[in-house]
Amino acid sequence: MSSEQKFRIGILGASGYTGADLVRLLVAHPNVEIVLMTAERKAGQPISAIFPHLAAYDLPDLISIDEVEWPAIDIDVVFCALPHATSQQVIMGLMHETKHSLLDELVVETQADLAGQAKADIKIIDLSADFRLRDVGTYAEWYGREHTAQSVQPKAVYGLTEFYREELKQAQLVACPGCYPTAALLALVPLLKAGLISTNDIIIDAKSGVSGAGRSLKEQNLFVEVAEAMHPYGLGAHRHMPEIEQELAVAAGEDVSISFTPHLVPMNRGELETIYVRLSEGQTAADLKQQLIETYANEQFVTVLEGTAAPATRMVRGSNRCVVNVFEDRQADRAIVVAAIDNLVKGSSGQAVQNMNLMLGLDEGTGLQQAPMFP
Amino acid sequence: MSSEQKFRIGILGASGYTGADLVRLLVAHPNVEIVLMTAERKAGQPISAIFPHLAAYDLPDLISIDEVEWPAIDIDVVFCALPHATSQQVIMGLMHETKHSLLDELVVETQADLAGQAKADIKIIDLSADFRLRDVGTYAEWYGREHTAQSVQPKAVYGLTEFYREELKQAQLVACPGCYPTAALLALVPLLKAGLISTNDIIIDAKSGVSGAGRSLKEQNLFVEVAEAMHPYGLGAHRHMPEIEQELAVAAGEDVSISFTPHLVPMNRGELETIYVRLSEGQTAADLKQQLIETYANEQFVTVLEGTAAPATRMVRGSNRCVVNVFEDRQADRAIVVAAIDNLVKGSSGQAVQNMNLMLGLDEGTGLQQAPMFP
Amino acid sequence: MSSEQKFRIGILGASGYTGADLVRLLVAHPNVEIVLMTAERKAGQPISAIFPHLAAYDLPDLISIDEVEWPAIDIDVVFCALPHATSQQVIMGLMHETKHSLLDELVVETQADLAGQAKADIKIIDLSADFRLRDVGTYAEWYGREHTAQSVQPKAVYGLTEFYREELKQAQLVACPGCYPTAALLALVPLLKAGLISTNDIIIDAKSGVSGAGRSLKEQNLFVEVAEAMHPYGLGAHRHMPEIEQELAVAAGEDVSISFTPHLVPMNRGELETIYVRLSEGQTAADLKQQLIETYANEQFVTVLEGTAAPATRMVRGSNRCVVNVFEDRQADRAIVVAAIDNLVKGSSGQAVQNMNLMLGLDEGTGLQQAPMFP
Amino acid sequence: MSSEQKFRIGILGASGYTGADLVRLLVAHPNVEIVLMTAERKAGQPISAIFPHLAAYDLPDLISIDEVEWPAIDIDVVFCALPHATSQQVIMGLMHETKHSLLDELVVETQADLAGQAKADIKIIDLSADFRLRDVGTYAEWYGREHTAQSVQPKAVYGLTEFYREELKQAQLVACPGCYPTAALLALVPLLKAGLISTNDIIIDAKSGVSGAGRSLKEQNLFVEVAEAMHPYGLGAHRHMPEIEQELAVAAGEDVSISFTPHLVPMNRGELETIYVRLSEGQTAADLKQQLIETYANEQFVTVLEGTAAPATRMVRGSNRCVVNVFEDRQADRAIVVAAIDNLVKGSSGQAVQNMNLMLGLDEGTGLQQAPMFP
Repeated sequence: MSSEQKFRIGILGASGYTGADLVRLLVAHPNVEIVLMTAERKAGQPISAIFPHLAAYDLPDLISIDEVEWPAIDIDVVFCALPHATSQQVIMGLMHETKHSLLDELVVETQADLAGQAKADIKIIDLSADFRLRDVGTYAEWYGREHTAQSVQPKAVYGLTEFYREELKQAQLVACPGCYPTAALLALVPLLKAGLISTNDIIIDAKSGVSGAGRSLKEQNLFVEVAEAMHPYGLGAHRHMPEIEQELAVAAGEDVSISFTPHLVPMNRGELETIYVRLSEGQTAADLKQQLIETYANEQFVTVLEGTAAPATRMVRGSNRCVVNVFEDRQADRAIVVAAIDNLVKGSSGQAVQNMNLMLGLDEGTGLQQAPMFP
Repeated sequence: MSSEQKFRIGILGASGYTGADLVRLLVAHPNVEIVLMTAERKAGQPISAIFPHLAAYDLPDLISIDEVEWPAIDIDVVFCALPHATSQQVIMGLMHETKHSLLDELVVETQADLAGQAKADIKIIDLSADFRLRDVGTYAEWYGREHTAQSVQPKAVYGLTEFYREELKQAQLVACPGCYPTAALLALVPLLKAGLISTNDIIIDAKSGVSGAGRSLKEQNLFVEVAEAMHPYGLGAHRHMPEIEQELAVAAGEDVSISFTPHLVPMNRGELETIYVRLSEGQTAADLKQQLIETYANEQFVTVLEGTAAPATRMVRGSNRCVVNVFEDRQADRAIVVAAIDNLVKGSSGQAVQNMNLMLGLDEGTGLQQAPMFP
Repeated sequence: MSSEQKFRIGILGASGYTGADLVRLLVAHPNVEIVLMTAERKAGQPISAIFPHLAAYDLPDLISIDEVEWPAIDIDVVFCALPHATSQQVIMGLMHETKHSLLDELVVETQADLAGQAKADIKIIDLSADFRLRDVGTYAEWYGREHTAQSVQPKAVYGLTEFYREELKQAQLVACPGCYPTAALLALVPLLKAGLISTNDIIIDAKSGVSGAGRSLKEQNLFVEVAEAMHPYGLGAHRHMPEIEQELAVAAGEDVSISFTPHLVPMNRGELETIYVRLSEGQTAADLKQQLIETYANEQFVTVLEGTAAPATRMVRGSNRCVVNVFEDRQADRAIVVAAIDNLVKGSSGQAVQNMNLMLGLDEGTGLQQAPMFP
Repeated sequence: MSSEQKFRIGILGASGYTGADLVRLLVAHPNVEIVLMTAERKAGQPISAIFPHLAAYDLPDLISIDEVEWPAIDIDVVFCALPHATSQQVIMGLMHETKHSLLDELVVETQADLAGQAKADIKIIDLSADFRLRDVGTYAEWYGREHTAQSVQPKAVYGLTEFYREELKQAQLVACPGCYPTAALLALVPLLKAGLISTNDIIIDAKSGVSGAGRSLKEQNLFVEVAEAMHPYGLGAHRHMPEIEQELAVAAGEDVSISFTPHLVPMNRGELETIYVRLSEGQTAADLKQQLIETYANEQFVTVLEGTAAPATRMVRGSNRCVVNVFEDRQADRAIVVAAIDNLVKGSSGQAVQNMNLMLGLDEGTGLQQAPMFP
């Protein structure tokens, strides 16, 4: 494909941190061109007004979703970085599905327009949680509202690239994993698939940088509240828990119940998960490590560290990489698996671009070769 | 005691962060006066040269331990904030014990002088790890060297104030707990004493600010290595592990084996431990919480938070406080106990002063009423 | 005064960072008792709900100003940490002044009640900017609104303690300086008084921690926006500029025009000002330093550093101290004066307490002896 | 040039932060290949041992300079990120110059080998300060030692790309500017060239992230010393001062004397300079801005911000960009120029790569298109 024939990209909800990182990655991608960026509250503003660091790039001004002239703009791929719940309605329209009765207020007018006008085979990459849970009942339980795009849900492919590669190549709609699930699943799926660990004794202690909380105005995200401090949150009830369990169950072939506790750490980017597992009869930490080495031998973005090197977020900062390692626990029947990613890249925008590459038939790593930024 | 009769305090090893925080607390203490501060490599310097923030206080210049004229200086209480292993020899001398054959090089000349000259009933508060482990074999195993003050070890009282109060009042030598053990024990000892949790399924995921690593020049403690990043260390083999197990075993009345993983967090102060426990038959998270509430009902420095408030390091920064809470896990037979302390205060210098107060017959909280500093 | 006869303190606007630091200082003050805390939006909540780190203290619940029963509560001293402009109306009432026609909406009902009911000789310490500018025209110019308590303005004493000590002892109403003015004035007033520097070539480059921006929800104060970054703001037009000029003019006996540029630094606390001055004919940097040494020889909270030690914010963190030093510039007719304070303490709450002590006839340093917290 | 014919790159001194950022940029550069990396103290180690974040890249192991087999390795371009003073000797050899009598101990054996063996037309890009000062007397004055490569000095081109482009295309040896000079010169050179500002009243207040201090083990660079704090250093005597003055004098056509004060800020990357200038007769801040706009109209890496947007380090983090703007001062005859760069990129490794591109006849921006990383 020549540079005159770049794929045309739209970003819905471009004013958040996920949107910013999508732009950072896509402006360096040789095969795509950003032609649409929406943001409801900041519609009408140039991107430089909300992200001055992007001022030097030739990017479209922000508009509201209502203002999109879909036929004219001729989008090939749309990234949805919209708030949870809003995505369902917008994507209903994009998928040309019959309108659901429970329309989200924000997009009520938008749907009809969208439904008939977007390109029929538009690729949709959703970064929200709206299509991650296969079971709409589980969605309703954890998100406190009915799923409003139930007819679309079965068409969504879960975007954990390393494990859904073939499905992703055929997908029209991809539900990108949450940041916590991404690190947890890369660490655990191979172990459960191979039956190396117990399915009912998995404890995930997760730590995340603050960008994961988004750009919304909440007191708890102010610099002064976060700096020089740390604390857990969502104890016993974080929404990423059912998502992790869903995919672990797929891997294990049986139900898996986890303990999951996230913590907020005073850094912008980075996510570390320290995972305590019980070994299956006869297994050792070395067996677990060997399984990960084999699983990821040909993966360009997942690295099993050598020896006893501890994964650290600074090893992946700004990159699409995941580093992982396995450690013996002092308790003979236990092991510790540690994984680190950049929550905004492999945990969000980077994995979304990785999926886009697959959907478009491009080399999977195109535009994702940035080395980690340390310092 | 009138202000003319303040207790005379010496700090051995005053140039580290623990020393700095001891000074911060002691200059505000109404019943004591710092009359001696030692630092080997920085001997001869005024305190303002190494801790400019203390320049406004009337403090003695730093000298080496060799230079101390014990009879003349007439110390009532000595804090040992010396490197691990050095403490044993110095304290041997202070305790008037026969010299051990394996003398640390640094202090070989010092011992003889010390032995005969310090006040016979001098109170000694050791902040190193040298006397924390009751079993000298365990010490040798974890610290990679023979214990060189084995005759003194049995005289040391473990300085976890809330649980050794009566012994501390009588002690001549106190071995202050490590920072990680302090938080872990305050969270777990009451639960094990009451038999509410399993003794063989305790997972402690600990996070600490960087001051815990001390002021020594190591690449891994440089700002650029630590900022905007986090990682685990000492996986499966941290020296605080046997110390925690020792005291948990005392509480449980049987051996306890834990999994313990510390992490380095980009903040100066603060320590948070997220502890995953298995409930004893018939117990609930609420039972655990009730036990902590009852245990600490009359403790001024340990607070069980109300409702589902999550302990955060910013709640205790700069203070001698510990905040703790218990949470239901999604797995019915598990609970999560979270504790936060300031590693330099309750985890080190503050608890040392708290112990000093007991040893001197003062009110336990004297000089320790600083409110946490937030922001 | 016995502990039964503590002065009764009210804090209006207690939910911000200034309020938190006032509480931190006042709970450790031996002669006062906090009996009233107001916060409009958080009225009805216990202090532990908004400042969990203060949960262990016996403090009144937050109420709205309207709810204060002034006669019953019998306040001796009120600290006003209210938003700028609100203070004027509240203080009008407290001072029993006739109501002004332009009432702030928030307090319209409150005024009448206040006016007649508070203790006639109540001491008022305002931490807002509302009474700092002697000239109400200058106020209107810089704050974009008419001063609504013009009859009260002349009664306000400017609370730069070291230079208004005698007036403060007699004052009923004190207008505490802004944080930037405090550092600038402590550095420059003695030099201008003595005629050692030019009045028309003063450049103040100021750097502040984020707590100075308050706890309000603004995107620019989110952790992710501030961390790992810095930038100037209010270029050429910051409101602290006329305040600094006002007091420098008093010192110089003539108009002084400054250049002042503040910067936001990724830290919670601390303020550093690097001030570039032109020397008067025949003067040297050493002369300037000597002048500062003499001025502050007997001041407990202002320290002129020795030699070429550079003031650093870590030298004053959490304390009421100011450190200052003078440096030769490479340009012979110039010198550089550097001052550091903790913006929340000497730059706000600490200086307010220092002033309170004077107003109440207490020793000026009572309750302000906290050593700086480093680490 | 096909990918089989990539230029062969050597990095001398690859174990520091500058080396790490060079690698980050060069592994993404389409026309080069890193074939040599040296580090004296860490010789023999794989790069993953000292920079685990680079483990996924195919890079040569670290060796000492002595071990380099120059004929065999066939380097086209060598980057010298060696300590100041070491560079002179190594580059003497590379340039085939007669040995100087004052050989640096470290490299004494190396020189003879180097001198005769490296490719005759090898391109040398020095990131140290060793060849920045044209006058070897000035070098001796500020660096406290004689220049030991005086015959080479005249051949060095000062690598401020935007102003020495033509010379750089012909250069064999480039002396890359210091980080502080880069930002200062980009802001000031156009103004002095056009005579818009006074040559004797320039005050540069600079703020830098900690990576500028390098990876050496100094107490002042420990996390705990730097975090939550800031301070100035090198007051009146920083070594970047004569370098800035040298280039400003070239621009002005007369001697220029500046006041320059750097500050350390708790962040990894980023440099901000707030520059106070006096306007020439009849000039305004708008005139200055217009001059910058015209100068940089066609520059891809220097952006003059619109309106009153304040340059911020987060706008350039991780990128080769510089953002600059001009502000009116309140004093009519003054203006404030603010520039921000990433000290490791445009201030060091990025500008070095930009220069390499010119020296090799490549497009100047090749491999430097990374968008700034925010968050």
